[in-house]
Amino acid sequence: MEENLVKYVWIVFCASIVALGFAFFFYRRMLKEDEGTPTMREIASHVRKGAMAYLKQQYKVVTIVFVILAVLFLIMSIFHLQNGVVWFAFLTGGFFSGLAGFLGMKTATYASARTANGARQSLNKGLQVAFRSGAVMGLTVVGLALLDVSAWFLVLNGTGLLELVGEHATLTTITTTMLTFGMGASTQALFARVGGGIYTKAADVGADLVGKTEYNIPEDDPRNPATIADNVGDNVGDVAGMGADLYESYAGSILSTMALGAAAFATIGAEMQMKSILAPMMIAAVGVILSVIGIFMVRTKEDASMTQLLKALSRGTNTAAVLIAVATFCIMYVLFKDSTDIVWWQVSLSVVVGLLAGVIIGKSTEYYTSQSFKPTQKVAEASQTGPATVIISGIGLGMISTVIPVLTIGVAIILAFLCANGFQIEFNAVNLSKGLYGIGIAAVGMLSTLGITLATDAYGPIADNAGGNAEMSGLEPEVRKRTDALDALGNTTAATGKGFAIGSAALTALALLASYVEEIKMALERIGTKVLVLDPNPDSYREVLTSDASLIDFMEYYNVSLMNPKVLVGVFIGSMMAFLFCGLTMNAVGRAAQKMVEEVRRQFREIKGILTGEGTPDYARCVAISTKGAQREMLLPSILAILAPIVTGLILGVAGVLGLLVGGLGAGFVLAIFMANAGGAWDNAKKYVEEGNFGGKGSDNHKATVVGDTVGDPFKDTSGPSLNILIKLMSMVSIVMAGLTVAIHLL
Amino acid sequence: MEENLVKYVWIVFCASIVALGFAFFFYRRMLKEDEGTPTMREIASHVRKGAMAYLKQQYKVVTIVFVILAVLFLIMSIFHLQNGVVWFAFLTGGFFSGLAGFLGMKTATYASARTANGARQSLNKGLQVAFRSGAVMGLTVVGLALLDVSAWFLVLNGTGLLELVGEHATLTTITTTMLTFGMGASTQALFARVGGGIYTKAADVGADLVGKTEYNIPEDDPRNPATIADNVGDNVGDVAGMGADLYESYAGSILSTMALGAAAFATIGAEMQMKSILAPMMIAAVGVILSVIGIFMVRTKEDASMTQLLKALSRGTNTAAVLIAVATFCIMYVLFKDSTDIVWWQVSLSVVVGLLAGVIIGKSTEYYTSQSFKPTQKVAEASQTGPATVIISGIGLGMISTVIPVLTIGVAIILAFLCANGFQIEFNAVNLSKGLYGIGIAAVGMLSTLGITLATDAYGPIADNAGGNAEMSGLEPEVRKRTDALDALGNTTAATGKGFAIGSAALTALALLASYVEEIKMALERIGTKVLVLDPNPDSYREVLTSDASLIDFMEYYNVSLMNPKVLVGVFIGSMMAFLFCGLTMNAVGRAAQKMVEEVRRQFREIKGILTGEGTPDYARCVAISTKGAQREMLLPSILAILAPIVTGLILGVAGVLGLLVGGLGAGFVLAIFMANAGGAWDNAKKYVEEGNFGGKGSDNHKATVVGDTVGDPFKDTSGPSLNILIKLMSMVSIVMAGLTVAIHLL
Repeated sequence: MEENLVKYVWIVFCASIVALGFAFFFYRRMLKEDEGTPTMREIASHVRKGAMAYLKQQYKVVTIVFVILAVLFLIMSIFHLQNGVVWFAFLTGGFFSGLAGFLGMKTATYASARTANGARQSLNKGLQVAFRSGAVMGLTVVGLALLDVSAWFLVLNGTGLLELVGEHATLTTITTTMLTFGMGASTQALFARVGGGIYTKAADVGADLVGKTEYNIPEDDPRNPATIADNVGDNVGDVAGMGADLYESYAGSILSTMALGAAAFATIGAEMQMKSILAPMMIAAVGVILSVIGIFMVRTKEDASMTQLLKALSRGTNTAAVLIAVATFCIMYVLFKDSTDIVWWQVSLSVVVGLLAGVIIGKSTEYYTSQSFKPTQKVAEASQTGPATVIISGIGLGMISTVIPVLTIGVAIILAFLCANGFQIEFNAVNLSKGLYGIGIAAVGMLSTLGITLATDAYGPIADNAGGNAEMSGLEPEVRKRTDALDALGNTTAATGKGFAIGSAALTALALLASYVEEIKMALERIGTKVLVLDPNPDSYREVLTSDASLIDFMEYYNVSLMNPKVLVGVFIGSMMAFLFCGLTMNAVGRAAQKMVEEVRRQFREIKGILTGEGTPDYARCVAISTKGAQREMLLPSILAILAPIVTGLILGVAGVLGLLVGGLGAGFVLAIFMANAGGAWDNAKKYVEEGNFGGKGSDNHKATVVGDTVGDPFKDTSGPSLNILIKLMSMVSIVMAGLTVAIHLL
Repeated sequence: MEENLVKYVWIVFCASIVALGFAFFFYRRMLKEDEGTPTMREIASHVRKGAMAYLKQQYKVVTIVFVILAVLFLIMSIFHLQNGVVWFAFLTGGFFSGLAGFLGMKTATYASARTANGARQSLNKGLQVAFRSGAVMGLTVVGLALLDVSAWFLVLNGTGLLELVGEHATLTTITTTMLTFGMGASTQALFARVGGGIYTKAADVGADLVGKTEYNIPEDDPRNPATIADNVGDNVGDVAGMGADLYESYAGSILSTMALGAAAFATIGAEMQMKSILAPMMIAAVGVILSVIGIFMVRTKEDASMTQLLKALSRGTNTAAVLIAVATFCIMYVLFKDSTDIVWWQVSLSVVVGLLAGVIIGKSTEYYTSQSFKPTQKVAEASQTGPATVIISGIGLGMISTVIPVLTIGVAIILAFLCANGFQIEFNAVNLSKGLYGIGIAAVGMLSTLGITLATDAYGPIADNAGGNAEMSGLEPEVRKRTDALDALGNTTAATGKGFAIGSAALTALALLASYVEEIKMALERIGTKVLVLDPNPDSYREVLTSDASLIDFMEYYNVSLMNPKVLVGVFIGSMMAFLFCGLTMNAVGRAAQKMVEEVRRQFREIKGILTGEGTPDYARCVAISTKGAQREMLLPSILAILAPIVTGLILGVAGVLGLLVGGLGAGFVLAIFMANAGGAWDNAKKYVEEGNFGGKGSDNHKATVVGDTVGDPFKDTSGPSLNILIKLMSMVSIVMAGLTVAIHLL
């Protein structure tokens, strides 16, 4: 029977090929579009070259870090602190995550001029080109992730690789080993988000501060020396960074749920384990197919209005979401119809809870960050009393906006937990394992339609770049207006996308907590601790075999309660890490932006005729400044994120690490929402003023909102989104380093 | 023997009388000083009347809240969910906390003109008047707190009051009952901090935005209609608010340590309990006496320079700190020299750890917020590229500045824990109780010299107001220069004071976690749960008598581990509460400030000759706007802080509440440091530019730093300091409501 189930994994494998096939299909179709005038082609090629040059640089640095870590894992495996497949699995995770970002970015840089050219024809044509190019990214990310997951599973399950390195190839070992390529993906994603985020915001802030504020020239004006760097930044930050980020989220949620499933049903038998491993993969696979269908549904009449376009996009994503909910019930029925350990319709409800939570968080993001609603309008209103009150009210809004997402995730956690364990409130090992599996699979549900939601997300920066291209190529103002409309549409859909990313991060991180404990169990067995003494007191002596120990036994063995000072100190350090990480990335943007401002000012001063259009700015130097700044500045925060759980483990042990992870998750989740929403609101408050409210463009009020927008840039595009990855990377590092923590700890 | 020990409580009682006596002495001496010219007297009287009028208003609102809560406690006691003394103890805590703020403020408003007049004579004379007036506040706070603590203890221990309401008057019951007046103090403090904070910053921001930025008139210029409101604000926020706040911190740390001591040694016997209850009281009492000595040591030659003044202040505080460390060893020797359960010199080390941690956090605050050091200078440097980069770099600085305090507190927690339990790493009930007692007593150590540190803290706003008085009375520029120097000195010492407040909040909150569990124990017994089933499984059935259950048993009974979704959801909600609370208070300041700006602009527009000094501004209307704004806006955040733990308890039960408290503590502690330091750095970056760096006063760079300073105002004086109280108030509410949580909870 178990072998019989492996055929389902091949279905998942095929789904990944289908996704990649459609990605390639959309890519080719996009390439066939006309790239427009020679100027448009030239500008696009500048941006493309800049982006590729940056990515090459970044991959060089990241490769060094990966090699060092892989060697470390190899050494650990020699000392039996980790198994011998991990170092290689880690590398493939990093490779695929990077590849997803790279391919997405390559597509985006080819698509921008074509989108601008499409927009010359009609709004709809522009949307089609941009959205289909975004779909390339969406499908590449999910395709590569499913490929990596299914292929590794088939290899580890079907070949004797694990036995070769001296491990028993149980489903538990297989799934926890596979988690380590999650760490590879997270590491790659963090570098991509942080490096790309610093790059793009240094260029953006630099270009805006001098161009818009000091010289009053419009955005993307070719006279601004930082304008190419700014457009390159959109690609390396918003496209490549986001691609790697969501690859990590997507793969991470599937992998952690697989590991939880294997652990939860280990005592029941291999068949049940296998089914619970299959469930997240199958949901993801079906989600991919439904996403493709959804993508094809996004089409409108040639003369479509803005509202019709938005409807078209919503129709695509909503259809995919509803269908996946229905499909989930079918999948669960097929897998669990005969099971008494899990009730098929109940665990399906966990998935639906995840989906719904994602939608609610997305809607709340939209409410707090769109200029159509009160909160952002209030921020714009505060501009009447200057930039300081704009900042104060944006920060206030961002902080208050954390309430709905936190309560939603709180309710989702409880519901997903209860649905999966048959509504058992009683706290015991069986209910807990099943419940945690429910939380994991809720995250998978939330991300199941990533193929299409990411398409609507990635299309934003493409439209943004198309606008830049139109401006720089001196196309008719009508074209710019159309690309601006597409861009605005992208902002709304991107808000929903961010909701999914952040919500899934919280759920996945919870699932990873349990995986960490499972990994501790394996690490203890590997170093020969066969028995855990739960109570050393002779009168009430209790012990349990390590192999039989439940999650609750481990909590007792390591005293992971809220009265343990090690746990509490861990919570403090975890909360602090979230802030430290943001502080470092904020400062990095600040420093790089200052350098950019100085360079742009210098060029305006020294290059004659630059403002009249007679002199040519030195674009390359600005690109070089952003590149160098991002390279130098991304290292420290990223390395700290890797070191924090290791050092905490070496000093405070397992209890301290769990405290660290929970503290980082609690503070990091809330901080991430705060920063993303405050940044989004400032951006749109500026747009609201530009639409003619409170004095309109060029007024003092407008200038005040530009200050808000500039502060918001690193909030929403550098520090905020990196936090999602930080939370998960710290968990992943803890998991991979569990062997070390178990073997060596001071307290 | 136990009765014999009660005499020590009388010593504490006497110490409190001594403190209050010296406070009265300094107060009378200050009153004898000359209040200066008729103009000076008049202005001082305006400020005094405004401040008193506001406080009266605030007390009215707060009284309503207190009456409602007291009635609620009375009802709870009828249903046996709380004992019958609580409602009254709660009221006295609130009363004394409010009284401490009121008396401090009364002194401050009498002292400002006298300080200005003293500064006409010499810098030293100004310092003497301001510092001695600050000492009134410092000694009043510690005196009232010790009076309340010692008197209640004598009453509950010596009279039959507890038996009268049907409780056994054990030391455990006495100390946990006394904790509830901690809740009274916290509630009062929160209203005072939030209300005062909103008042002062609305006025400050309003006055600065129009006066400084739009009309280029100096601070405290009598032509500015908001200037009286601004000066009133310094008194109601920085003096009355801080007084109530530190009363709460001081009393809270002593009360929670007493409760921990009674709980930790309950099985050993009443004598040991009594000694461990006495220890924190005695340290505080000796600290009071040493503070008085320290205060007398602050004196210099008549022609003292700035450096000499700073040295004089440091000499006072440092001497008090060193002496209290020495005295602690003596106290502990006397109490515990014969004990085998606690080693006198080891537990003394816990106290020293607390003292040292406070100093380190203070120094780190100084490093990150003083313009003498790199970080703040970098913020000033960022002004060259405009206000946006000032904000970005200030936020970056604030976030990074959380590292040292968090690591310090982390190390302090571990060390204080280990010192108190004889360096036992093994995790069992005895080691845990003793260790937690060590953490509590470290907090007491940290605050033991509050009498003098608060004097240096409270003297800041007095000097600030003296400057305002000098400016408005048109005194010679030399006087203003001297008061500015005193003010700057106050900023440095205030930084240290904030370090103590925030560090002690973290330690006290940890101690309160344990007190919460003790209260749960009593609540269970009260409702008749005599036995706790730890493992319901028939094969491994385990139970424990509620009366014998240890902290660890309760953790197991309520499953307060990091794998419990209820705990995790609690952590999320707790983290969110810290942000929500700050968001609400930030927005409150923003809204009130906007109203103030509109009013000031209106007056400048409509009152003729106001700028030439011929027309008189309508000061009263600005005072009224701040008063109304603060009254209206302080309610929601404060009530939320009270409701959050109650609602969480009703839904998620004990595990959820503990999660909430830990999440709130982790995120709140870090957020508080971030906000306080970012705000302080912005303030001093502005001062650094005003000192002539990066273009000096009036330059565009200066304007950019003024934006930073304005944003920083609510950061450092409203939201940031209120967080300390929020953290503890949530714990206190949980403790008082434990009976309800135990009786009714959904999950």
